[in-house]
Parts: sequence; structure tokens; C-alpha cells
Amino acid sequence: MSQLQVLLVAGTHGNEINGIWLFDEWNKSSFLINTHGIKTCKIIGNPNAKKAGKRYIHNDLNRSFHEEAFLSINSANFEGSRASELVNLYGEKGQNPCQIALDFHTTTASMGSCLVVYGRRNVDLALASLIQNKLGLPVYLHESDQKQTGFLVESWPCGLVIEIGPIGQGLLNARIISQTKLILETLMEQIHQVQNSNLFFPEKLIIHRHIKSIDFPRDEEGNIDGYVHPRRQSKDWQALKKKDELFYKLNGETIRFEEHETYIPVFINEAAYVEKNIAMSFTKRELWNFKKEWKQSFLDLVHQQ
Amino acid sequence: MSQLQVLLVAGTHGNEINGIWLFDEWNKSSFLINTHGIKTCKIIGNPNAKKAGKRYIHNDLNRSFHEEAFLSINSANFEGSRASELVNLYGEKGQNPCQIALDFHTTTASMGSCLVVYGRRNVDLALASLIQNKLGLPVYLHESDQKQTGFLVESWPCGLVIEIGPIGQGLLNARIISQTKLILETLMEQIHQVQNSNLFFPEKLIIHRHIKSIDFPRDEEGNIDGYVHPRRQSKDWQALKKKDELFYKLNGETIRFEEHETYIPVFINEAAYVEKNIAMSFTKRELWNFKKEWKQSFLDLVHQQ
Repeated sequence: MSQLQVLLVAGTHGNEINGIWLFDEWNKSSFLINTHGIKTCKIIGNPNAKKAGKRYIHNDLNRSFHEEAFLSINSANFEGSRASELVNLYGEKGQNPCQIALDFHTTTASMGSCLVVYGRRNVDLALASLIQNKLGLPVYLHESDQKQTGFLVESWPCGLVIEIGPIGQGLLNARIISQTKLILETLMEQIHQVQNSNLFFPEKLIIHRHIKSIDFPRDEEGNIDGYVHPRRQSKDWQALKKKDELFYKLNGETIRFEEHETYIPVFINEAAYVEKNIAMSFTKRELWNFKKEWKQSFLDLVHQQ
Repeated sequence: MSQLQVLLVAGTHGNEINGIWLFDEWNKSSFLINTHGIKTCKIIGNPNAKKAGKRYIHNDLNRSFHEEAFLSINSANFEGSRASELVNLYGEKGQNPCQIALDFHTTTASMGSCLVVYGRRNVDLALASLIQNKLGLPVYLHESDQKQTGFLVESWPCGLVIEIGPIGQGLLNARIISQTKLILETLMEQIHQVQNSNLFFPEKLIIHRHIKSIDFPRDEEGNIDGYVHPRRQSKDWQALKKKDELFYKLNGETIRFEEHETYIPVFINEAAYVEKNIAMSFTKRELWNFKKEWKQSFLDLVHQQ
């Protein structure tokens, strides 16, 4: 019998509460979510931030999973300690080892439901392919971004972020909750199929590959002086053509898209990214062939337990 | 020359930032907003909460304007002190006296643009009538609610709250900013018309009179165990019929509207009201005759300065 165990995380950001609420209901009614017999550990990523109604206390927990942080026993901030604690408790070599981490987030951007993979690990791409094949979700490949590192799922052998929006911070919404539930159950069902060697891997994976993030327009003092243009707001995943409106300023000036390539914008006007100087990110849409080694790596991970 | 002065407040809640951003831009370009020559003081209501990215530090500032609070010199919380300070600085008898207070808010509920009046002061109803006549905005009359008191505008001889939504907390949005600008300029224009005796008061005022607020469904331990039904979400201002869906629970149970009267729901799923045990408020829509004394009181206020 496989001892595969899946770590389910909600509330990695304390003001993204729909997943937390779903977990609470699940705790009350254990039949609420069908995990297809797979063992799970479900946790609140940042309970202190949840309590405070904030994204985080000292630092973004989902940028705090760095090797060097785990070496120091007393981190100077809550999230550094919490990251170490989670790895010690639920990491591959932790007290209660999990091999796959699924991290449930929400966004104020109109992203719908999507998956985020960090880098090009075979196992992540295999699992993302399975879900895309089943639900048709877009996959955002986040890579080559030196400014954004230390994501939770990277500390597990396999891991995906699930992003659902638009939803305001601190706000519960029936639609977001049911989207979360659907993706969670689909993930468990697909992992179960692989465990039981019912293999239906697709031939292709559509990737939205991260190219770069762009900042808001700023004045001489560095203050934001223009905002996402009404024609760009809520247009995540829709390709930008040259001269399309990006930002507007109250003085009437419009800032336009001037790149020579076609980019697809994501995370347009995500409230939490303002402090990271990110107004939106640009991606390129690519059709990748599904590789044999993705499947093999994922089979190895699921069956080696 | 009239010495009428209007207090303009943004950021009474620190995470409602669109008005603050508009004021910042206005400070840079004094011609941005046309105040029709009327003197204004524009301030950030709760700058500390703004800095912290929160609604408030210790207590909701917009529930902190109580007579008794102003008598104690050292309030035990930041917002108590701030309320006293604002009255001392900009109150009718303050250092820099203002007679009208306009308090700009945003909401996560789909309220569109609307006005809130607190109680039935003649001057407030006169000003709200002028704006409704000009822009067609709904007016929510908040009264007879013992649990919700101490609103900022009540500490000025005349005052309205402007609520605009839906917009997530901490999020800037071009549409919300331009709606804020439009209402602000219309308010100033209408006050200017009254100053100059160009009187076009309407004959009727449509009021949504507060009846009561209702809480979320809760389990035995008092935790929320059901949420706003998908069919009710974003349906502010739309009349409820008997058996309409209000809440849903993940166990499949739907909680329905069972009142015998027709109520109009407002502030459906406002994120900040969860802590106040308010899932939505019920109002009755009423058509009131515009009263002569509303006009006279407003003329007296505007001309006595």
C-alpha cells in the first residue's frame, strides 16, 4: 500500500480565506471532500496572519522558503520560523512526511482558476498536465524571476499553486469556494488514477511562460501616479497588441503597450503585488509536447512511497 | 463672501484607498477637481491604518465619533484620539471650521455609487436630494441601529457618506476613482448652486430605509458555517421575494428569505462587516416628498457662514 501523503495548504496568505473556510467545513464533515483514499495533511499556512486579517506579519510567507533560512534556528521574523516549521513537520524528511504540496491561493485579479508551476520540474509539469487535460485550466510557468523566490511548493518534491480570482482580500465567496473544492477533488482524483496506473497523460501542455513583470507609472518621488487602464482591468489571459492601453493617469495621459512581441498579461492589478512593484506580469503562450520523463518522474514519486 | 468650508475625508478606513489616491493626485495638480470656488479641507481620516494597510488600528474610526469619547483627553485607542483630533481641528467649532463633511468610502459589495445618510437631519436630506436628482444615485438611510453608532459625519452639522463598490480592500481601480471624482465634483457644484441661489430642489426623494441587518448562518460554536448564496452575491438593491436564496451551506442546505414583506438588501458580503456579524442589511424602498424645511435648513447652513 502506497504511503503517499499530500500536504494541502490554505491561508499561506492570511487574507486569502476561502480555502481556510473550506478546510474548516471539511473538518466538520469529513465526507465533504473526496480524496480517493489518499492520505492528506491539511493546514493553515499562516495562522497568525489569518488572525490579524493580513497577508503576513513580517514577510510574505510564500517568499520565505529559502534553504539558508532553514539553517538558522531563530529566524528574525515570524514567517521565516513558520517556513522552517512547516518543512520540519511536513517536508519530505519531516516528522509527518508529505511528497506533494498543493497550495491554495486567491487573487484580486480576474485570473479565473489557474495553476502556477515554479520552474520546470518534471513532476510538477506532469501533474499540471493532468489537471489541464481534465479541467482546461491555464498554467502559468513562473521562472527566471530573481526578485520573486522562496515559494512554499518548491520545498516539496512536487507542488503546485492553485490561484482563483477575482476575489477581494478577506472576502468569502460561494463561487470561489466551489471552484476551490472542484480543483482540490480533481487533483486528488488524478493522483489516485496515477497511483492505480490508470494513465491518461495528454500529449500537449499549454504553458504561459513568465517573461517579466512591469511596474506602475511613477512620479519623480517614486509614488504611483497612474493606474491600470479601464480597458486592461480584468483582461487577464487576453493577448496584448501593440498600442493597447496599459495605464491611465488622471491628467488624461494613457500609457500603452509598446513591445514588438505578443504578450499575455496575468495578475493584472493584484492588490498584494503593489508593494512588490508589480502592476501585471507578461507571459508568452507556448504549446509544449508532453515529455516521457515528466510521466516517469511522477510515477516514480507516487509509487516509491 | 461666504466662508462656507467643506471637509473632504478619504481613508477613514485605511484599506479603502481610491479616495486617498485621488486626493494625492489632486495635491499634485490643483486644477484636477473643480470645487467651484468653495473652500475645502481634504484629509486622510486614518493615516496610521492606511500605513498599516488595515481598516483600523484599534477600533473602527467610523464608529468612534461619540460625545463621551471627546471628553476624555487620552483615549485608550488610536481611533478614539483621532476622532477627537478631527473634531478639534475641523469641527464646526474647531480651529479650521468646516460645516459640511463628505466622507468617501468604498465597499466590497456591488453597491455601485450611492449615498448614506445617518438619521433624518434636514440638511443631509436636502443635499442627498440634490445629488440624487443630478446623478440618480440610491440613498441609504441608516437609522434605528443601536449597534452601529458614532459615524464621522454625524459630528458635523451636515454630512454624507459616499460608498462606491465593488472593489476589494487595498485595491485601486480606475472606474472607482473616476466615480469618486464625479460625485465629489457634483457635490461641490450643487453646493455652489445653492450658495448662488440657483435652486433646483426636486419634489421627491427615493430612500432605502434601514430595517435591520442579518448575520451569517452559524454552527453551535458560533462559527460561520454558510455563506452568501451565489444567486444573492452582487445583487444589492434588488428586491427579495419570499423563498429567494440568501445563504448556502456546503452540505447542500440553502437558507431562504422568509419574511412577509419586500425588502431590498444592501451591503451584501461587505468584507469588513463580517466582524460586525452583518452578512447584509435589509431596507425598505420609500418615496418621500421633499420638505420645505429641508431646503430652508440647508440654505441657512450655507448662507449663515
